[in-house]
Amino acid sequence: MRNLLITISYKGTAYHGFQVQKNAVTVCEVFQNAVEKVLKKREDVKGCSRTDSGVHAGQFCVGLSTEASIPCENLVRALNVNLPDDVAVLDCIEVPQEFHARYSSTGKRYVYRVWNSAVKNPFLGEYSWHYPYKLDVEKMNRAAADFIGTHDFSAFCSAGTSVEDKVRTIHFVGVEKNGDLVQITVEGDGFLYNMVRIMAGTLIEIGGGFREETQIPAVLASLDRAKAGKTAPAHGLHLDKVFYDEIEGFKRK
Amino acid sequence: MRNLLITISYKGTAYHGFQVQKNAVTVCEVFQNAVEKVLKKREDVKGCSRTDSGVHAGQFCVGLSTEASIPCENLVRALNVNLPDDVAVLDCIEVPQEFHARYSSTGKRYVYRVWNSAVKNPFLGEYSWHYPYKLDVEKMNRAAADFIGTHDFSAFCSAGTSVEDKVRTIHFVGVEKNGDLVQITVEGDGFLYNMVRIMAGTLIEIGGGFREETQIPAVLASLDRAKAGKTAPAHGLHLDKVFYDEIEGFKRK
Repeated sequence: MRNLLITISYKGTAYHGFQVQKNAVTVCEVFQNAVEKVLKKREDVKGCSRTDSGVHAGQFCVGLSTEASIPCENLVRALNVNLPDDVAVLDCIEVPQEFHARYSSTGKRYVYRVWNSAVKNPFLGEYSWHYPYKLDVEKMNRAAADFIGTHDFSAFCSAGTSVEDKVRTIHFVGVEKNGDLVQITVEGDGFLYNMVRIMAGTLIEIGGGFREETQIPAVLASLDRAKAGKTAPAHGLHLDKVFYDEIEGFKRK
Repeated sequence: MRNLLITISYKGTAYHGFQVQKNAVTVCEVFQNAVEKVLKKREDVKGCSRTDSGVHAGQFCVGLSTEASIPCENLVRALNVNLPDDVAVLDCIEVPQEFHARYSSTGKRYVYRVWNSAVKNPFLGEYSWHYPYKLDVEKMNRAAADFIGTHDFSAFCSAGTSVEDKVRTIHFVGVEKNGDLVQITVEGDGFLYNMVRIMAGTLIEIGGGFREETQIPAVLASLDRAKAGKTAPAHGLHLDKVFYDEIEGFKRK
Protein backbone atom coordinates (compact mmCIF):
# COMPACT_ATOMS: atom_id res chain seq x y z
CA MET A 1 0.00 0.00 0.00
CA ARG A 2 1.43 3.40 -0.97
CA ASN A 3 0.61 6.52 1.05
CA LEU A 4 0.54 9.53 -1.26
CA LEU A 5 0.37 13.19 -0.29
CA ILE A 6 -1.17 15.18 -3.14
CA THR A 7 -1.06 18.98 -3.20
CA ILE A 8 -3.99 20.66 -4.90
CA SER A 9 -5.18 24.22 -5.47
CA TYR A 10 -8.77 25.26 -5.97
CA LYS A 11 -11.13 28.14 -6.53
CA GLY A 12 -13.83 27.50 -3.94
CA THR A 13 -16.67 29.56 -5.47
CA ALA A 14 -18.58 26.61 -6.91
CA TYR A 15 -18.03 24.24 -3.97
CA HIS A 16 -19.52 23.60 -0.54
CA GLY A 17 -16.04 23.37 0.93
CA PHE A 18 -13.65 20.43 0.75
CA GLN A 19 -15.30 17.81 2.95
CA VAL A 20 -17.84 15.48 1.28
CA GLN A 21 -21.46 16.39 2.04
CA LYS A 22 -24.78 14.92 1.03
CA ASN A 23 -26.64 16.91 -1.64
CA ALA A 24 -23.84 19.44 -2.23
CA VAL A 25 -20.87 19.44 -4.58
CA THR A 26 -17.57 19.53 -2.72
CA VAL A 27 -13.93 19.61 -3.79
CA CYS A 28 -13.36 16.20 -2.21
CA GLU A 29 -16.08 14.67 -4.37
CA VAL A 30 -14.73 16.02 -7.69
CA PHE A 31 -11.23 15.00 -6.60
CA GLN A 32 -12.41 11.46 -5.80
CA ASN A 33 -14.21 11.34 -9.16
CA ALA A 34 -10.93 12.17 -10.92
CA VAL A 35 -9.02 9.56 -8.86
CA GLU A 36 -11.66 6.98 -9.76
CA LYS A 37 -11.33 7.75 -13.47
CA VAL A 38 -7.54 7.45 -13.35
CA LEU A 39 -7.14 4.48 -10.96
CA LYS A 40 -10.43 2.70 -11.91
CA LYS A 41 -11.26 2.47 -8.21
CA ARG A 42 -12.97 4.87 -5.79
CA GLU A 43 -10.38 5.50 -3.08
CA ASP A 44 -10.86 7.18 0.30
CA VAL A 45 -9.00 10.45 0.66
CA LYS A 46 -8.09 12.53 3.72
CA GLY A 47 -8.03 16.32 3.54
CA CYS A 48 -5.57 18.42 5.55
CA SER A 49 -8.44 20.58 6.78
CA ARG A 50 -12.10 21.37 6.35
CA THR A 51 -12.81 24.53 4.39
CA ASP A 52 -16.09 26.45 4.33
CA SER A 53 -18.25 26.95 1.25
CA GLY A 54 -16.63 29.46 -1.09
CA VAL A 55 -13.21 29.46 0.60
CA HIS A 56 -10.25 29.12 -1.79
CA ALA A 57 -7.02 27.17 -1.45
CA GLY A 58 -3.71 28.10 -3.02
CA GLN A 59 -2.31 24.96 -1.42
CA PHE A 60 -4.35 22.15 0.11
CA CYS A 61 -3.00 18.67 0.85
CA VAL A 62 -4.84 15.41 0.37
CA GLY A 63 -3.75 11.97 1.59
CA LEU A 64 -4.47 9.00 -0.67
CA SER A 65 -3.73 5.36 0.18
CA THR A 66 -3.63 3.18 -2.89
CA GLU A 67 -2.35 -0.12 -4.25
CA ALA A 68 -1.89 1.52 -7.66
CA SER A 69 1.68 1.64 -8.94
CA ILE A 70 1.28 4.70 -11.21
CA PRO A 71 4.33 7.02 -10.85
CA CYS A 72 3.54 10.29 -9.02
CA GLU A 73 4.36 12.44 -12.04
CA ASN A 74 1.93 10.55 -14.26
CA LEU A 75 -0.76 10.65 -11.59
CA VAL A 76 -0.47 14.46 -11.40
CA ARG A 77 -0.88 14.76 -15.15
CA ALA A 78 -3.78 12.29 -15.36
CA LEU A 79 -5.68 13.86 -12.45
CA ASN A 80 -5.35 17.33 -13.99
CA VAL A 81 -6.87 16.09 -17.24
CA ASN A 82 -9.84 14.71 -15.30
CA LEU A 83 -10.44 17.63 -12.93
CA PRO A 84 -12.57 20.70 -13.71
CA ASP A 85 -10.86 24.05 -14.46
CA ASP A 86 -11.23 25.27 -10.87
CA VAL A 87 -9.26 22.42 -9.25
CA ALA A 88 -5.61 21.69 -10.08
CA VAL A 89 -3.11 19.12 -8.82
CA LEU A 90 0.27 20.74 -8.19
CA ASP A 91 2.33 17.90 -6.78
CA CYS A 92 2.35 14.33 -5.47
CA ILE A 93 4.89 12.68 -3.18
CA GLU A 94 5.08 9.28 -1.49
CA VAL A 95 5.14 9.59 2.31
CA PRO A 96 5.63 7.07 5.14
CA GLN A 97 2.61 4.97 6.23
CA GLU A 98 2.22 6.86 9.51
CA PHE A 99 2.07 10.25 7.77
CA HIS A 100 -1.40 11.85 7.83
CA ALA A 101 -2.44 14.88 5.71
CA ARG A 102 -4.27 16.39 8.68
CA TYR A 103 -2.65 15.12 11.87
CA SER A 104 0.96 15.41 10.64
CA SER A 105 0.44 19.08 9.75
CA THR A 106 2.27 21.45 12.07
CA GLY A 107 0.41 24.56 11.01
CA LYS A 108 -1.28 26.56 8.29
CA ARG A 109 -1.16 29.99 6.73
CA TYR A 110 -4.34 31.78 5.69
CA VAL A 111 -4.69 35.00 3.71
CA TYR A 112 -7.85 37.09 3.96
CA ARG A 113 -8.28 39.50 1.03
CA VAL A 114 -10.20 42.75 1.10
CA TRP A 115 -10.87 44.99 -1.89
CA ASN A 116 -10.79 48.34 -0.12
CA SER A 117 -12.20 50.88 -2.54
CA ALA A 118 -15.47 52.74 -2.98
CA VAL A 119 -15.87 50.88 -6.29
CA LYS A 120 -15.99 47.07 -6.51
CA ASN A 121 -13.41 45.15 -8.57
CA PRO A 122 -15.11 42.97 -11.23
CA PHE A 123 -12.05 40.69 -11.46
CA LEU A 124 -11.46 40.11 -7.74
CA GLY A 125 -15.13 39.89 -6.74
CA GLU A 126 -14.96 36.14 -6.13
CA TYR A 127 -11.57 36.34 -4.41
CA SER A 128 -11.93 39.25 -2.00
CA TRP A 129 -14.46 40.97 0.24
CA HIS A 130 -15.45 44.39 -1.06
CA TYR A 131 -15.20 46.72 1.93
CA PRO A 132 -15.80 50.34 0.88
CA TYR A 133 -14.81 52.20 4.09
CA LYS A 134 -11.22 53.38 4.36
CA LEU A 135 -9.06 50.97 6.37
CA ASP A 136 -6.23 52.17 8.61
CA VAL A 137 -3.70 49.41 7.97
CA GLU A 138 -1.22 50.68 10.56
CA LYS A 139 -3.89 50.50 13.25
CA MET A 140 -4.85 46.98 12.10
CA ASN A 141 -1.22 45.86 12.36
CA ARG A 142 -0.88 47.22 15.89
CA ALA A 143 -4.07 45.42 16.93
CA ALA A 144 -3.06 42.21 15.11
CA ALA A 145 0.08 41.87 17.23
CA ASP A 146 -2.15 41.09 20.24
CA PHE A 147 -3.25 37.83 18.61
CA ILE A 148 0.29 36.46 18.57
CA GLY A 149 1.04 33.79 21.15
CA THR A 150 -0.95 31.00 22.80
CA HIS A 151 -4.50 31.92 23.80
CA ASP A 152 -7.92 30.40 24.35
CA PHE A 153 -9.67 31.49 21.15
CA SER A 154 -13.25 30.76 22.34
CA ALA A 155 -14.25 34.35 21.48
CA PHE A 156 -13.05 33.75 17.92
CA CYS A 157 -14.87 30.47 17.30
CA SER A 158 -18.35 30.07 15.82
CA ALA A 159 -20.95 28.09 17.70
CA GLY A 160 -21.54 24.56 16.50
CA THR A 161 -18.02 23.24 16.92
CA SER A 162 -17.46 20.02 18.83
CA VAL A 163 -13.86 20.87 19.72
CA GLU A 164 -13.25 20.99 23.49
CA ASP A 165 -9.79 22.51 23.63
CA LYS A 166 -9.90 26.02 22.18
CA VAL A 167 -6.30 26.94 22.93
CA ARG A 168 -4.31 27.66 19.79
CA THR A 169 -0.97 29.30 19.03
CA ILE A 170 -0.71 32.09 16.47
CA HIS A 171 2.81 32.70 15.15
CA PHE A 172 2.19 35.58 12.80
CA VAL A 173 -0.52 38.09 11.87
CA GLY A 174 0.27 40.88 9.39
CA VAL A 175 -1.76 43.29 7.30
CA GLU A 176 -0.42 44.59 3.99
CA LYS A 177 -1.87 47.11 1.54
CA ASN A 178 -1.05 46.94 -2.15
CA GLY A 179 -3.04 49.57 -4.05
CA ASP A 180 -6.67 48.94 -3.07
CA LEU A 181 -6.02 45.34 -2.05
CA VAL A 182 -5.58 44.74 1.68
CA GLN A 183 -4.33 41.31 2.74
CA ILE A 184 -4.44 39.89 6.25
CA THR A 185 -2.02 36.98 6.69
CA VAL A 186 -2.41 34.63 9.67
CA GLU A 187 -0.09 31.74 10.53
CA GLY A 188 -0.73 29.35 13.40
CA ASP A 189 -0.48 25.78 14.61
CA GLY A 190 -4.21 25.15 14.23
CA PHE A 191 -7.49 26.97 13.80
CA LEU A 192 -11.00 26.71 15.22
CA TYR A 193 -14.23 26.86 13.20
CA ASN A 194 -14.40 30.30 11.45
CA MET A 195 -11.46 31.52 13.55
CA VAL A 196 -9.60 33.34 10.75
CA ARG A 197 -12.81 34.87 9.41
CA ILE A 198 -13.73 36.22 12.87
CA MET A 199 -10.15 37.51 13.43
CA ALA A 200 -10.31 39.20 9.99
CA GLY A 201 -13.78 40.62 10.67
CA THR A 202 -12.60 42.06 13.99
CA LEU A 203 -9.42 43.57 12.51
CA ILE A 204 -11.45 45.12 9.68
CA GLU A 205 -13.85 46.72 12.18
CA ILE A 206 -10.79 48.14 13.95
CA GLY A 207 -9.28 49.38 10.68
CA GLY A 208 -12.58 50.97 9.68
CA GLY A 209 -12.75 52.85 12.98
CA PHE A 210 -15.70 50.92 14.39
CA ARG A 211 -13.69 49.39 17.29
CA GLU A 212 -10.77 50.41 19.48
CA GLU A 213 -7.40 49.02 18.42
CA THR A 214 -6.46 48.07 22.00
CA GLN A 215 -9.38 45.74 22.69
CA ILE A 216 -8.12 42.38 21.36
CA PRO A 217 -6.66 41.20 24.72
CA ALA A 218 -9.98 41.91 26.48
CA VAL A 219 -11.98 40.16 23.76
CA LEU A 220 -9.69 37.10 23.99
CA ALA A 221 -9.98 37.08 27.80
CA SER A 222 -13.79 37.28 27.66
CA LEU A 223 -14.00 33.88 25.90
CA ASP A 224 -17.27 35.33 24.55
CA ARG A 225 -18.01 35.09 20.82
CA ALA A 226 -20.37 38.07 21.09
CA LYS A 227 -17.47 40.36 22.05
CA ALA A 228 -15.53 39.78 18.81
CA GLY A 229 -16.34 41.25 15.39
CA LYS A 230 -18.55 39.85 12.65
CA THR A 231 -17.43 36.78 10.71
CA ALA A 232 -15.92 38.13 7.47
CA PRO A 233 -17.45 36.53 4.32
CA ALA A 234 -16.01 33.20 3.18
CA HIS A 235 -15.07 34.28 -0.36
CA GLY A 236 -12.24 36.53 0.91
CA LEU A 237 -10.51 33.60 2.65
CA HIS A 238 -7.65 31.64 1.07
CA LEU A 239 -5.83 28.71 2.64
CA ASP A 240 -2.36 29.68 1.46
CA LYS A 241 -0.03 27.00 2.83
CA VAL A 242 -0.07 23.84 4.92
CA PHE A 243 3.08 23.19 6.92
CA TYR A 244 4.62 19.78 7.62
CA ASP A 245 7.87 19.60 9.53
CA GLU A 246 9.30 16.42 8.14
CA ILE A 247 8.22 16.72 4.51
CA GLU A 248 11.43 18.06 2.99
CA GLY A 249 13.16 14.68 2.92
CA PHE A 250 10.38 12.82 1.06
CA LYS A 251 10.75 12.01 -2.62
CA ARG A 252 8.53 11.83 -5.67
CA LYS A 253 8.46 8.12 -6.65
CA MET B 1 -28.49 67.70 -23.32
CA ARG B 2 -25.40 66.53 -21.43
CA ASN B 3 -22.83 64.28 -23.10
CA LEU B 4 -21.29 61.99 -20.50
CA LEU B 5 -18.29 59.71 -20.90
CA ILE B 6 -18.52 56.86 -18.41
CA THR B 7 -15.57 54.57 -17.73
CA ILE B 8 -16.46 51.01 -16.80
CA SER B 9 -14.58 47.78 -16.09
CA TYR B 10 -15.96 44.28 -16.57
CA LYS B 11 -15.26 40.59 -16.34
CA GLY B 12 -16.47 39.33 -19.71
CA THR B 13 -16.97 35.64 -18.86
CA ALA B 14 -20.76 35.81 -18.56
CA TYR B 15 -21.33 38.16 -21.51
CA HIS B 16 -21.59 37.94 -25.27
CA GLY B 17 -19.35 40.97 -25.59
CA PHE B 18 -20.31 44.61 -25.15
CA GLN B 19 -22.57 45.32 -28.11
CA VAL B 20 -26.31 44.59 -27.73
CA GLN B 21 -27.41 41.35 -29.42
CA LYS B 22 -30.71 39.58 -29.74
CA ASN B 23 -31.07 36.51 -27.50
CA ALA B 24 -27.75 36.96 -25.69
CA VAL B 25 -26.81 38.89 -22.57
CA THR B 26 -24.31 41.65 -23.26
CA VAL B 27 -22.52 44.20 -21.09
CA CYS B 28 -24.32 47.02 -22.92
CA GLU B 29 -27.70 45.57 -21.97
CA VAL B 30 -26.94 45.25 -18.24
CA PHE B 31 -25.40 48.74 -18.32
CA GLN B 32 -28.53 50.17 -19.98
CA ASN B 33 -30.68 48.34 -17.41
CA ALA B 34 -28.76 50.07 -14.60
CA VAL B 35 -29.03 53.47 -16.35
CA GLU B 36 -32.78 52.93 -16.73
CA LYS B 37 -33.16 52.13 -13.03
CA VAL B 38 -31.23 55.24 -12.00
CA LEU B 39 -32.52 57.77 -14.57
CA LYS B 40 -36.01 56.22 -14.99
CA LYS B 41 -35.52 56.30 -18.75
CA ARG B 42 -33.88 53.84 -21.18
CA GLU B 43 -31.10 55.85 -22.83
CA ASP B 44 -29.03 54.96 -25.87
CA VAL B 45 -25.36 54.41 -25.14
CA LYS B 46 -22.31 54.27 -27.40
CA GLY B 47 -19.43 51.92 -26.63
CA CYS B 48 -15.80 52.80 -27.44
CA SER B 49 -15.38 49.44 -29.14
CA ARG B 50 -16.97 46.09 -29.76
CA THR B 51 -15.57 43.27 -27.70
CA ASP B 52 -15.98 39.53 -28.35
CA SER B 53 -17.77 37.08 -26.05
CA GLY B 54 -15.66 36.39 -22.97
CA VAL B 55 -13.21 39.28 -23.50
CA HIS B 56 -12.56 41.39 -20.38
CA ALA B 57 -12.11 45.13 -19.98
CA GLY B 58 -10.02 46.84 -17.33
CA GLN B 59 -11.13 50.12 -18.89
CA PHE B 60 -13.97 50.54 -21.37
CA CYS B 61 -15.63 53.88 -22.18
CA VAL B 62 -19.33 54.44 -22.81
CA GLY B 63 -20.95 57.61 -24.15
CA LEU B 64 -24.33 58.56 -22.69
CA SER B 65 -26.43 61.53 -23.81
CA THR B 66 -29.01 62.51 -21.24
CA GLU B 67 -31.24 65.35 -20.07
CA ALA B 68 -30.79 64.15 -16.47
CA SER B 69 -29.09 66.61 -14.15
CA ILE B 70 -27.68 64.06 -11.67
CA PRO B 71 -24.09 64.98 -10.72
CA CYS B 72 -21.44 62.64 -12.16
CA GLU B 73 -20.28 61.44 -8.75
CA ASN B 74 -23.80 60.42 -7.71
CA LEU B 75 -24.40 58.71 -11.04
CA VAL B 76 -21.25 56.58 -10.55
CA ARG B 77 -22.43 55.51 -7.11
CA ALA B 78 -26.02 54.80 -8.19
CA LEU B 79 -24.98 52.80 -11.26
CA ASN B 80 -22.61 50.66 -9.19
CA VAL B 81 -25.44 49.77 -6.81
CA ASN B 82 -27.56 48.65 -9.78
CA LEU B 83 -24.92 46.73 -11.72
CA PRO B 84 -24.02 43.06 -11.20
CA ASP B 85 -20.73 42.16 -9.45
CA ASP B 86 -18.88 41.67 -12.74
CA VAL B 87 -19.45 45.20 -14.09
CA ALA B 88 -18.21 48.33 -12.28
CA VAL B 89 -18.38 52.04 -13.08
CA LEU B 90 -15.03 53.69 -12.37
CA ASP B 91 -15.61 57.27 -13.49
CA CYS B 92 -17.92 59.72 -15.25
CA ILE B 93 -17.04 63.05 -16.86
CA GLU B 94 -19.00 65.56 -18.91
CA VAL B 95 -17.56 65.99 -22.40
CA PRO B 96 -18.35 68.39 -25.29
CA GLN B 97 -21.30 67.55 -27.57
CA GLU B 98 -19.06 66.57 -30.48
CA PHE B 99 -17.08 64.07 -28.39
CA HIS B 100 -17.79 60.42 -29.27
CA ALA B 101 -16.70 57.43 -27.15
CA ARG B 102 -15.68 55.51 -30.26
CA TYR B 103 -14.73 58.05 -32.94
CA SER B 104 -12.86 60.43 -30.63
CA SER B 105 -10.63 57.61 -29.40
CA THR B 106 -7.05 57.88 -30.66
CA GLY B 107 -6.04 54.35 -29.77
CA LYS B 108 -6.32 51.39 -27.45
CA ARG B 109 -4.11 49.10 -25.43
CA TYR B 110 -4.85 45.40 -25.15
CA VAL B 111 -3.19 42.81 -22.91
CA TYR B 112 -3.30 39.13 -23.83
CA ARG B 113 -2.61 36.83 -20.84
CA VAL B 114 -1.17 33.34 -21.02
CA TRP B 115 -0.78 30.97 -18.06
CA ASN B 116 2.38 29.21 -19.19
CA SER B 117 2.79 26.17 -16.98
CA ALA B 118 2.22 22.43 -17.28
CA VAL B 119 -0.47 22.79 -14.59
CA LYS B 120 -3.53 25.05 -14.99
CA ASN B 121 -4.19 27.90 -12.57
CA PRO B 122 -7.64 27.56 -10.92
CA PHE B 123 -7.74 31.30 -10.11
CA LEU B 124 -6.67 32.68 -13.51
CA GLY B 125 -8.59 30.16 -15.62
CA GLU B 126 -11.17 32.73 -16.70
CA TYR B 127 -8.58 35.46 -17.24
CA SER B 128 -5.81 33.73 -19.16
CA TRP B 129 -5.21 31.07 -21.78
CA HIS B 130 -3.57 27.98 -20.34
CA TYR B 131 -0.72 27.16 -22.73
CA PRO B 132 1.40 24.28 -21.39
CA TYR B 133 4.36 24.36 -23.83
CA LYS B 134 7.38 26.40 -22.79
CA LEU B 135 7.37 29.89 -24.36
CA ASP B 136 10.59 31.63 -25.41
CA VAL B 137 9.70 35.20 -24.43
CA GLU B 138 12.88 36.71 -25.90
CA LYS B 139 12.06 35.18 -29.27
CA MET B 140 8.48 36.47 -29.02
CA ASN B 141 9.74 39.98 -28.31
CA ARG B 142 12.08 39.95 -31.31
CA ALA B 143 9.21 38.78 -33.55
CA ALA B 144 6.76 41.27 -32.01
CA ALA B 145 8.92 44.22 -33.08
CA ASP B 146 8.03 43.47 -36.71
CA PHE B 147 4.39 44.41 -36.01
CA ILE B 148 5.34 47.96 -35.08
CA GLY B 149 4.53 50.61 -37.67
CA THR B 150 1.78 51.09 -40.27
CA HIS B 151 0.79 47.94 -42.16
CA ASP B 152 -2.12 46.37 -43.99
CA PHE B 153 -3.27 43.85 -41.36
CA SER B 154 -5.47 41.74 -43.71
CA ALA B 155 -3.55 38.61 -42.68
CA PHE B 156 -4.45 39.35 -39.04
CA CYS B 157 -8.18 39.91 -39.52
CA SER B 158 -10.91 37.28 -39.29
CA ALA B 159 -13.29 36.79 -42.18
CA GLY B 160 -16.71 38.37 -41.81
CA THR B 161 -15.60 41.94 -41.28
CA SER B 162 -17.16 44.68 -43.37
CA VAL B 163 -14.21 47.05 -42.96
CA GLU B 164 -12.58 48.03 -46.29
CA ASP B 165 -9.43 49.73 -45.11
CA LYS B 166 -7.27 47.25 -43.24
CA VAL B 167 -4.30 49.55 -42.68
CA ARG B 168 -3.60 50.14 -38.99
CA THR B 169 -0.70 51.55 -36.99
CA ILE B 170 0.78 49.62 -34.09
CA HIS B 171 2.83 51.73 -31.67
CA PHE B 172 3.96 49.08 -29.21
CA VAL B 173 4.06 45.31 -28.81
CA GLY B 174 5.87 43.79 -25.82
CA VAL B 175 5.93 40.41 -24.12
CA GLU B 176 6.65 40.11 -20.39
CA LYS B 177 7.01 37.07 -18.16
CA ASN B 178 6.17 37.23 -14.47
CA GLY B 179 6.46 33.77 -12.90
CA ASP B 180 4.25 31.54 -15.05
CA LEU B 181 2.17 34.44 -16.36
CA VAL B 182 3.12 35.73 -19.82
CA GLN B 183 1.53 39.00 -20.93
CA ILE B 184 1.47 40.32 -24.48
CA THR B 185 0.74 44.06 -24.59
CA VAL B 186 -0.35 45.70 -27.86
CA GLU B 187 -0.99 49.41 -28.40
CA GLY B 188 -2.29 50.85 -31.63
CA ASP B 189 -4.50 53.46 -33.23
CA GLY B 190 -7.19 50.94 -34.13
CA PHE B 191 -7.79 47.23 -34.48
CA LEU B 192 -9.53 44.91 -36.94
CA TYR B 193 -11.86 42.04 -36.04
CA ASN B 194 -9.88 39.50 -33.91
CA MET B 195 -6.61 41.30 -34.78
CA VAL B 196 -5.05 41.16 -31.29
CA ARG B 197 -6.10 37.54 -30.80
CA ILE B 198 -4.51 36.52 -34.13
CA MET B 199 -1.35 38.54 -33.35
CA ALA B 200 -1.19 36.83 -29.92
CA GLY B 201 -1.85 33.40 -31.42
CA THR B 202 0.94 33.91 -33.95
CA LEU B 203 3.43 35.17 -31.33
CA ILE B 204 2.58 32.21 -29.07
CA GLU B 205 3.23 29.76 -31.94
CA ILE B 206 6.60 31.48 -32.44
CA GLY B 207 7.38 31.36 -28.70
CA GLY B 208 6.43 27.69 -28.56
CA GLY B 209 8.81 26.89 -31.43
CA PHE B 210 6.09 26.05 -33.95
CA ARG B 211 6.96 28.98 -36.27
CA GLU B 212 10.08 30.91 -37.27
CA GLU B 213 10.57 34.19 -35.44
CA THR B 214 11.48 36.06 -38.66
CA GLN B 215 8.28 35.38 -40.55
CA ILE B 216 5.99 38.25 -39.41
CA PRO B 217 6.96 40.62 -42.29
CA ALA B 218 6.19 37.91 -44.87
CA VAL B 219 2.87 37.06 -43.21
CA LEU B 220 1.89 40.76 -43.19
CA ALA B 221 2.91 41.13 -46.86
CA SER B 222 0.88 38.08 -47.88
CA LEU B 223 -2.41 39.76 -46.81
CA ASP B 224 -3.56 36.14 -46.35
CA ARG B 225 -5.31 35.15 -43.11
CA ALA B 226 -4.29 31.52 -43.65
CA LYS B 227 -0.60 32.46 -43.31
CA ALA B 228 -0.95 33.80 -39.74
CA GLY B 229 -1.36 31.75 -36.56
CA LYS B 230 -4.53 30.52 -34.89
CA THR B 231 -6.84 33.01 -33.18
CA ALA B 232 -5.96 32.83 -29.46
CA PRO B 233 -9.02 32.17 -27.22
CA ALA B 234 -11.12 35.19 -26.21
CA HIS B 235 -10.87 34.69 -22.44
CA GLY B 236 -7.15 35.65 -22.41
CA LEU B 237 -7.88 39.07 -23.94
CA HIS B 238 -8.27 42.24 -21.87
CA LEU B 239 -8.99 45.71 -23.20
CA ASP B 240 -6.65 47.58 -20.89
CA LYS B 241 -6.97 51.24 -21.87
CA VAL B 242 -8.76 53.51 -24.32
CA PHE B 243 -6.85 56.63 -25.32
CA TYR B 244 -8.39 60.05 -26.00
CA ASP B 245 -6.11 62.97 -26.84
CA GLU B 246 -8.20 65.82 -25.57
CA ILE B 247 -9.72 64.26 -22.46
CA GLU B 248 -7.35 65.63 -19.82
CA GLY B 249 -9.03 69.06 -19.74
CA PHE B 250 -12.57 67.80 -19.13
CA LYS B 251 -14.12 68.02 -15.70
CA ARG B 252 -16.47 65.95 -13.55
CA LYS B 253 -19.64 68.04 -13.23
